[in-house]
This record gives sequence, structure tokens and C-alpha cells, in this order.
Amino acid sequence: MLDFEYYAPTRVVFGKDAESETGKLVKEQNCQKVLVHYGSQSAVRSGLIDRICASLDAVGIRYAALGGVVPNPRLSKVLEGIALCRKEQVDFILAVGGGSVIDSAKAIGYGAANDGDVWDFYDRKRSAAACLPIGAVLTIAAAGSEMSNSSVITNEETQIKRGYSSNLCRCRFAVMNPALTCTLPDYQTQSGCVDIMMHTIERYLNHDTNMGLTDGISEALLRTVIKNALILRNDPENYDARAEVMWASSLSHNGLTGCGTDGGDWASHQLEHSLGAFYDVAHGAGIAAVWGSWARYVYRDRPKRFASLASRVLMVPERSSTEETALAGIRAMEAFFCSIGMPVSLRELGITPTEAEILKLADNCSYGNTRTIGIVRRLGREDMAAIYRMAL
Amino acid sequence: MLDFEYYAPTRVVFGKDAESETGKLVKEQNCQKVLVHYGSQSAVRSGLIDRICASLDAVGIRYAALGGVVPNPRLSKVLEGIALCRKEQVDFILAVGGGSVIDSAKAIGYGAANDGDVWDFYDRKRSAAACLPIGAVLTIAAAGSEMSNSSVITNEETQIKRGYSSNLCRCRFAVMNPALTCTLPDYQTQSGCVDIMMHTIERYLNHDTNMGLTDGISEALLRTVIKNALILRNDPENYDARAEVMWASSLSHNGLTGCGTDGGDWASHQLEHSLGAFYDVAHGAGIAAVWGSWARYVYRDRPKRFASLASRVLMVPERSSTEETALAGIRAMEAFFCSIGMPVSLRELGITPTEAEILKLADNCSYGNTRTIGIVRRLGREDMAAIYRMAL
Repeated sequence: MLDFEYYAPTRVVFGKDAESETGKLVKEQNCQKVLVHYGSQSAVRSGLIDRICASLDAVGIRYAALGGVVPNPRLSKVLEGIALCRKEQVDFILAVGGGSVIDSAKAIGYGAANDGDVWDFYDRKRSAAACLPIGAVLTIAAAGSEMSNSSVITNEETQIKRGYSSNLCRCRFAVMNPALTCTLPDYQTQSGCVDIMMHTIERYLNHDTNMGLTDGISEALLRTVIKNALILRNDPENYDARAEVMWASSLSHNGLTGCGTDGGDWASHQLEHSLGAFYDVAHGAGIAAVWGSWARYVYRDRPKRFASLASRVLMVPERSSTEETALAGIRAMEAFFCSIGMPVSLRELGITPTEAEILKLADNCSYGNTRTIGIVRRLGREDMAAIYRMAL
Repeated sequence: MLDFEYYAPTRVVFGKDAESETGKLVKEQNCQKVLVHYGSQSAVRSGLIDRICASLDAVGIRYAALGGVVPNPRLSKVLEGIALCRKEQVDFILAVGGGSVIDSAKAIGYGAANDGDVWDFYDRKRSAAACLPIGAVLTIAAAGSEMSNSSVITNEETQIKRGYSSNLCRCRFAVMNPALTCTLPDYQTQSGCVDIMMHTIERYLNHDTNMGLTDGISEALLRTVIKNALILRNDPENYDARAEVMWASSLSHNGLTGCGTDGGDWASHQLEHSLGAFYDVAHGAGIAAVWGSWARYVYRDRPKRFASLASRVLMVPERSSTEETALAGIRAMEAFFCSIGMPVSLRELGITPTEAEILKLADNCSYGNTRTIGIVRRLGREDMAAIYRMAL
């Protein structure tokens, strides 16, 4: 078993009307002025932003607001946020939204608390020394950014989507009312469920020697998401199912499912990042579209782990060999994706890249052939192109 | 599903030689002087205390030391610690030991950071407004105090053992090297395993409507502890088994296994507290001795949950009725306790109270007939006496 560190200090307030606690939670942070950061107008139209602002007013906290964050959140909006934080002398950022909004808030937090170009951190040129404190009011169960150390931003000028992780950006608190997710379109709900599952699967498949307790927790989490994703397909306003998925989103990516392992594989995520940068697809759907192809490309390097996923999570009966069981599990995972309306190919994702475009994706994903991705198998530019081709 | 809060901010550093990080972790807390708090001389003889002190010396942190904490940690030692903290102007407490030492450190932390009598908090006379910051170097996997909000102290003058819980006392960090537990006597190891399991079971049995994700995590944790307790019975130096049990100790009591539930039942714990106060028994062993009797007394009030425990954790085949399955599960749990050398009666625990002593235990447990305990079934003084009698 490998050594590990675990640190998930976010205070979670979970349940009906939890957002009414927001003002109190911000007040406890001893801040003077808050940036309320959000995404689409739906948060405004639904009255959520008004309720949040009223909750801040009630405790006498001043605030500025910045909306307009889009999926695959953009560097230009981050720069706008940093400038606003400086102008308004903001000392706390409240992200009201899903992973895109929280990731954008984290990037703004890094940028406002450090001198120089914030993209340097995402570009691995230097490390952040600080981050403004951040709180989240979650409206989409997917990215797990509300408890994770991760932030992923797209530099739209260079079409590069990159993540930067550090404990500095862990949210001080996360307000989670599952009812806020009941009105999401089905495609977005199910894309979120795939994203949640993948945060655990990326870690689960990485070793033949995970901690048994971590494996058991991961398998329980994955079975829970599968069960409730199927419930939400037919009954999108089912509160308990929304709650199971929302709590799974946090636990899947706060570090718990990686304890005793050597981090995750993350190749599927990185293959998706290039799709997201070029075609602006929904993150979870993008992973679903390439995961089966990635899995078939690499499963022979970790047949036991793929077989465990098959038998303990997807309830596939054992086949004549470990590799056969593993392969049956990959098919079962794709069948599950299909059953919740998720794509299992690029065509189903709505994109049909030419061979030249595939090479461009592989070039982007390999940072111009300067890096490999993945641990289950180290993948170079040619491997990436082969997987994109398999996924057509 | 019930609303919940989850807050487990402790930074965990887990693995081989983790204790060598202690100085660095203390330094990050920006403190000036540390109280190194520990229990028996074995921590000194093994060289652990010297290694910890060397680690503090290496980063230039000054310290005072106070050993001698005993199981069922005593108020007199707490008062000694508070006086020492004041005299030495200590601003951080480092607990090196198991639950008793950490609980004692928490009580000292409350006492040093608040005016007046520290026992007031345990006696429910007032709430603590602050606590000195605490870090832990764990040497026994059992109480989960390294991540919990709980502290239990025995007032040896009045023979009252009581707990006080607040987020103020959550450890800033926990250093966990499973190898440090390899030399524990088997009885103490297994008593710890029972304690770990009970922190989850107290929560698990409490509702018919727990969160599915919480149930799945709890069941995985319980199966993991059962499996590894049996391994350690024959192979006490098995590092991986020690690691599984140690991480389970933290997750079982940090709040994770209670998410979406209404807290725990805690009657078995409270029945044990009186045994601990009067007879100074090992905590986990004391719970094992009364749990079966408590379970038979109350299982008809939550037959489904007891049946889930039977079938999903103890792998008992389903019987003709839910109640029969529940009862078979109670027998299976007792058989497991026997197989790891734990008592399932007071006699096996080594005590044979007279009827007058049973009434004295029930009087102690009911605070002189002024409180009930338990949620699965509310238990008054007569119920407590009946359960102690059943456990003879």
C-alpha cells in the first residue's frame, strides 16, 4: 500500500434550502467584500442570485458581482474577474454555479493573490503562493470542484485547456442543495454523472494494489451513481437521487477515492480536454465518447483492475479469463452510457474530425509532442491519435 | 434523506515513517511552544518520543512534555496539563498516542483556552468558546479521535465518564504510520477494531432511510475491518492490514459514515462509559461485551437495518423473516467478536457485578435517572439495568 496525504477541509452544508446559510458562512470568514461569481442568466432568472445577495445583505457583507462564466471556462473571463477583484478590493470569492464557475473562481483567486500572469500556473511556469479564499454554492453535480484542489481553464486564444491543482484553492465551504439541480437538462445531468464516475475510475484503475478500504468506498460510490443516474433519467426531480449524485460528486474528487493509490491515470480526462478546447463539448459527455476506446487500448496493462470494475461495479459475471471479464466490463460501461443518453463515440458526441483534425487534437493533447499522458499505459502523440481514431 | 453538515479539516499524513514529518507540520501551524502529550512509557522506550522531539528540534520549535495519560483518561491529568500549558505559555498541543491521549489533549486544549472549570463542558454546564490547536501522532487505531470532534474524559473522583464534542477540537493534522501499531498486544488491537466498527454501526442502525452512498461506504468500511481484524489475529505485523484498520479508524468517526443520517444511536457507547468509569475496562472490549444484549433488546424497533447489517456486512443468508435475519446477524456479530478474542458478556470481560452493582451502573449511565440514551429505542434506567443483566 502506498503512502498518501488526505486533506479536504471544506465545510459542507448539505440539504434543502442550504443556500439560506450562505451569508452566515461568508460572515464567518471575516471578509470585507465578496465577489459573487456565476454563470448563465438562469441563476439570475431562478432568483438564486437574488436570494444569495439577500443572504449577504442580511449579515452586512458588501459584494460585487460577475456573471457570464461559460462551460469550459475561459481565461478572458478570469482576467476580467482578477481586474474586478483588484478594483473592488475583494477579499473573498463566492462561486454560485457548477464546476466551470468554481474553477473560474479559483483561477481568479490565484490571479488576484499573486502578481504576474495567472496563466503561468496552468502553464506550469511557476507555482501559486496564495489564493483568495473561496466558497461555493453548488448548482450542478459533476466536477467535484466544490471540495477538490483542482481548477481547469481554457485559454481560448491558444485553444489550450489545462488544469492546475493545489490545496490553496480548496473551498472554505460548500453549500449544497440538491433541489437546485432538479431543473438541469437531462443531458447535463447525465454528463455530470459520467464526470463524477470518471473521477473515481481514473484513480480506481491505476493500480493492482489499491487499499481495500479505498476500493470498497470507490465501488460503493460508482454503484450509487449508476443507480441514481438511471433513476434521474425517468424522474429528474427525485430529490433523494439528486442528493446521492451531488454528494458523490464531492466525495469522488476530494481525494477520498485516491487514498493509498498513486494518484489517478487521467488520460481520459486529458483526451477530453483537447476535445473541449476545440469543440466546446460537455466535459462528461466528451469523456464518455473516448473512454471505451481508451479502455480497449490499455486494458491489457491492468486486466485485474478492469475485471474488478466489471464484476464489482457493473455486475458482469466472470468470464473464462480476466481479460475477457475486463472486456465485458468495458462493453457494460458503454451500454450504461448509452442507457443514460451519453455518447460512446465522437460521432455521437456530434463531431466528425478529419484525419488532419485528429492529428491536431493529438498534437494539442501532447502539448506539441512534448508530453505523454496516462499511467495505466504511458501514451504518446501517436497513441492519442490512435485512440481518437478508434473513437470516431 | 436528512440534511447534514460535514466538516473534517484534519490534514492526514499517512504511511511509513510519517512521524518524521511532525516537526514540519507543527512549524506550519505558526506556534511558539508545544506541549508534547503522551501516555505510557512504551512511547518513550520505543524511541518514538525522542524521534518526535528531534523532529521539533530540527525546525527550532520549543516544547514541554507531559506523559502518563492512562486508558479512560482522567480529569486530574487534564488539570495538570492545563496548569502546565499556562506555566509554559504553550500555544499548540501535540498528542502522541491513541484515543486516550488525543482526548486528554483536547480537554487540555479546552481548559487552557477558556477560563473556569474545564469539566463544565463535559458536564453540559456551558459551551467552550475556543480550544488550543492540536495535532496528533497516532499509535493506536481505535477511537478515531485524530479526525473526530469528540473527547471523552473520566472524572475519577465522581466515577463519571463523559464526552464533549465540538469542531473546535478537530486536529489540525494527524500523522499516521501504521507500523507504529504493529507492537500492540492482540487484545488492544482487537478492542480497537470493535471500537472502529461501533462508530459506524451506531450511525448505521439509526434509520431506515439512510443515504445509499453513506450506507455503501459504511458497509465497505465494516467489511474491511472484519477482514483485517482476522488477518491481524494471526499476523499482527502485517503492514497493509494495520494500514486498512488505521485509516478505517479515522473515516469511521470523522463524520463520513453519518452523512444523511440523524447522528448515531450511541446507547452501546454510553452503556460502556459506565463500565469504563467503574471497572476501567478497555473501551472496545466493553462495548463488545454489551452490544449483543443491547441489540437483542432493541432490534425489533429497526429490523430492516439490523437485517441489512446481517446480509451486507456479515454475509448472513436471508432467513424467513426480516426479524429472523436481524437476529442471525446479531449472532454472527457475536461469533465474530469471539473469533477475535473479544468478550460477548460481562463475565468474559472479567467483571461479575452483583444486582446492587448493576443498579449502580444503570444509575450512573442514566445520570441518576435524569436522562435516557439511544434513538433506535429510548432507554431509561430500568432498560439499562435489564441490558446489563442480559449481558452478565
